[in-house]
Amino acid sequence: MPAASAPIEELVDANHILFQQGVLDGFGHVSARDQRRADRFLLARSMAPALVSAADIMAFGLDGEPLDDERTPYLERFIHSEIYRARPDVMAIVHSHSPCVIPFGVASGVPLRAICHMSGFLRSATPVFEIRAAAGPASDLLIRDRKLGAALARSLAASAVVLMRGHGSTAVGTSLRQAVFRAIYTEVNARLQSEALRLGPVTYLNDEEADLASATNDGQINRAWELWKMQAARRPLRAAPKSRPPLRVHGPSRIRGSRRR
Amino acid sequence: MPAASAPIEELVDANHILFQQGVLDGFGHVSARDQRRADRFLLARSMAPALVSAADIMAFGLDGEPLDDERTPYLERFIHSEIYRARPDVMAIVHSHSPCVIPFGVASGVPLRAICHMSGFLRSATPVFEIRAAAGPASDLLIRDRKLGAALARSLAASAVVLMRGHGSTAVGTSLRQAVFRAIYTEVNARLQSEALRLGPVTYLNDEEADLASATNDGQINRAWELWKMQAARRPLRAAPKSRPPLRVHGPSRIRGSRRR
Amino acid sequence: MPAASAPIEELVDANHILFQQGVLDGFGHVSARDQRRADRFLLARSMAPALVSAADIMAFGLDGEPLDDERTPYLERFIHSEIYRARPDVMAIVHSHSPCVIPFGVASGVPLRAICHMSGFLRSATPVFEIRAAAGPASDLLIRDRKLGAALARSLAASAVVLMRGHGSTAVGTSLRQAVFRAIYTEVNARLQSEALRLGPVTYLNDEEADLASATNDGQINRAWELWKMQAARRPLRAAPKSRPPLRVHGPSRIRGSRRR
Amino acid sequence: MPAASAPIEELVDANHILFQQGVLDGFGHVSARDQRRADRFLLARSMAPALVSAADIMAFGLDGEPLDDERTPYLERFIHSEIYRARPDVMAIVHSHSPCVIPFGVASGVPLRAICHMSGFLRSATPVFEIRAAAGPASDLLIRDRKLGAALARSLAASAVVLMRGHGSTAVGTSLRQAVFRAIYTEVNARLQSEALRLGPVTYLNDEEADLASATNDGQINRAWELWKMQAARRPLRAAPKSRPPLRVHGPSRIRGSRRR
Repeated sequence: MPAASAPIEELVDANHILFQQGVLDGFGHVSARDQRRADRFLLARSMAPALVSAADIMAFGLDGEPLDDERTPYLERFIHSEIYRARPDVMAIVHSHSPCVIPFGVASGVPLRAICHMSGFLRSATPVFEIRAAAGPASDLLIRDRKLGAALARSLAASAVVLMRGHGSTAVGTSLRQAVFRAIYTEVNARLQSEALRLGPVTYLNDEEADLASATNDGQINRAWELWKMQAARRPLRAAPKSRPPLRVHGPSRIRGSRRR
Repeated sequence: MPAASAPIEELVDANHILFQQGVLDGFGHVSARDQRRADRFLLARSMAPALVSAADIMAFGLDGEPLDDERTPYLERFIHSEIYRARPDVMAIVHSHSPCVIPFGVASGVPLRAICHMSGFLRSATPVFEIRAAAGPASDLLIRDRKLGAALARSLAASAVVLMRGHGSTAVGTSLRQAVFRAIYTEVNARLQSEALRLGPVTYLNDEEADLASATNDGQINRAWELWKMQAARRPLRAAPKSRPPLRVHGPSRIRGSRRR
Repeated sequence: MPAASAPIEELVDANHILFQQGVLDGFGHVSARDQRRADRFLLARSMAPALVSAADIMAFGLDGEPLDDERTPYLERFIHSEIYRARPDVMAIVHSHSPCVIPFGVASGVPLRAICHMSGFLRSATPVFEIRAAAGPASDLLIRDRKLGAALARSLAASAVVLMRGHGSTAVGTSLRQAVFRAIYTEVNARLQSEALRLGPVTYLNDEEADLASATNDGQINRAWELWKMQAARRPLRAAPKSRPPLRVHGPSRIRGSRRR
Repeated sequence: MPAASAPIEELVDANHILFQQGVLDGFGHVSARDQRRADRFLLARSMAPALVSAADIMAFGLDGEPLDDERTPYLERFIHSEIYRARPDVMAIVHSHSPCVIPFGVASGVPLRAICHMSGFLRSATPVFEIRAAAGPASDLLIRDRKLGAALARSLAASAVVLMRGHGSTAVGTSLRQAVFRAIYTEVNARLQSEALRLGPVTYLNDEEADLASATNDGQINRAWELWKMQAARRPLRAAPKSRPPLRVHGPSRIRGSRRR
């Protein structure tokens, strides 16, 4: 059975693009559901996204545990597994600490919402996940188990993006490129909205405008993707490819464990 | 009949400059009226501006339809065609989502206006196009037909720049270099004005100052253009030139169609 | 008589440094008084600072006219000539449109002043030049003759920096490196001060602190200069040196004229 | 006795990382306590951090005086020596003028505090050092002797970071990598907090969340470090290595003097 090399290469590109566009720094991660088995998803081992290569991609089940792989996974892989469980339409997920978005998750009274056509997918409000409601007042704010992942997925509900108080945000898409597009334009929207709020009362997109603009943009994602890919390739930061062969995504057995981070 | 290679090369440069200066990202576009036939204009096929090469330039009539060209045009080419129809003085147009300008199109009460001599062309107010007045409450905000293009041109009227609510802005000029200069300094002015408004009451340029400063700057555009061109050339992102020969701008026939984007 | 090559090379470096540090863009200029003849100064011909090479440096008298040189000078050379006339202590001048400074020249009620030790030279207030007081309500805001240069010099008085309403600012120094240092840290101070003003009441440096910090920093300028020079050299943008030989700064005759810009 | 080359190389990397990440510019410095002798620490000679190489590292005693070294030390080395004296747990110190942090040191009423999990180490308030309390109203704001260093260390107390009014800030860590991590994320936190404060009332991390998040992040520092190191290496600015051999950190004698800066 051949390796799913095309999705893996695209997932590597997604890691580099999100770093180059300032959505991810040393932290955050991006995953894609396995296109041939909806109960599995692909995600890099625990490392800086800018340095990910094909050999670093691991496969996971929807319980968030690695499949047949001894390497250290991200602690917060349950963000991905539980959203894939709760949202069959979601094919890719980006979790980030992108800087202009974080303030909207900690300041009350101003929802993050669509201010221009490029971010119509935000519609008229973005939900905020308050981890204290699920983990109590003494957590490290991270989604470190299935229970917290499920609570986050409930906050996300049917939205494209969920803010995480004191932590960051998570964007989802029906394709990897759409999830990346949404993560990037969520950051853009946050910057524009902050600025507009200081100038005076704001006219936002109504939901009809938001939905129509979003549908139009979904047909244009490849234009941006090709540009972002070239920008990331111009300034590569990843290490030279490792000798380890790329992941075979349908390995038969799996090993569970308590490995973290 | 020889190709109009000089204007085409300059239009390619304009695409790269506007990307390098942060006015365009994966979206937005820049056109130039055909210097030999006022009823035609040049515009790249639908693609990221940073990647445009001479072979990507198409010719259009003032109905917004491509001339003798099967490639996919920008959906919003009617921004260009209708402004060229309404404003015989306009020789070039830049449509962008440049980030500091968008807030002035969505926040009420604060017109974008000239705060320093470099942006005198903005004078004492910049008109805002509200697409709901032309397309109703349920549009995708895009200028996707001649009627919307004509409505935008009416909002622009005799100004150098028109803001587009929830979308972006469009700058025009009597030359390609002037339109590019105006697009860049509209973004600069927006950033300066936002900042100044937070410090206290602002003294803007009066219209006499704005017009005199604008006239002076029109004599200096080449200085900036040569710099911007070198900056863009230092970090080229465009693909290697395609084998397709450059556009002949006076092809005899035209093909209409419903191609979009 | 040999050419004053060392000062000319340093002036070329200053042009490139000020561009690389974001103080100058396609516009603005930097000059140095001739170290051997206090009635002369050196300034590039009218061009983008990033592209200046040694062959582009011209010599001027204190009337602002070029010495034995047919090339086109900057229109605003009278900023330099009149300040050199009024301030014998000044050995170098930077005129810029650096972006964080402009808002302080147009918004009333908040003087630009020293917020940290690096910009002690700003002391407790920076004067603002309102060109309407000298040129009336209908100017292009530029310092285009000796009378306006003299008015600007009067606003500067004994300060290190003068803001120019709707235009930019001018920094002076007792050496070229000090003037460059001040231009750069004026921009830094403006950014910090804008930000601090939004957080709450600000404790500024008092004048004793400002003067003592400024004296200390004057002994450290070379450390920053060497860094800035390396940063500018890493990304050179200037054209290859022209064949024209470098300026001989003591040419015997002079040619006056009405050339501008 | 072999040179402590690994810590020295890491200290060189720290200098370059802090420059590349925008925490240090031409000024500021980073030190590490000697891992084999707690009464000594390592710090570059007085120079721009971006240009530091192994040969530039000097050793100091806890009185702030160089050990067996004639080169010019930083004037403010007493920041380091006195904090190492007062805080046996501290193994590394970063002093910077990082730009988003300075406003929190001069504006009253808004303490810098943890707004997201990455900066949990800030907890619910960051102390501010007012040099007027120790040096009176007429200082140059610099920590130029042991007395001022000791006063700063008292303001720092048990915190991870201390702000210095009108000057900058100082971050400490139990390892060099932790101190660098804290300096970088202090700057990030300041930018996020400024922005959030303009949107509305802010929910900060409580101290339990802050401590738990900080503990988690301490296990992830290497991931960021490897990324930052690659980023700094991609754009090196340091001069070619000098011929002078690297420091032997246990030189027998010491030379005291009044050398400054």
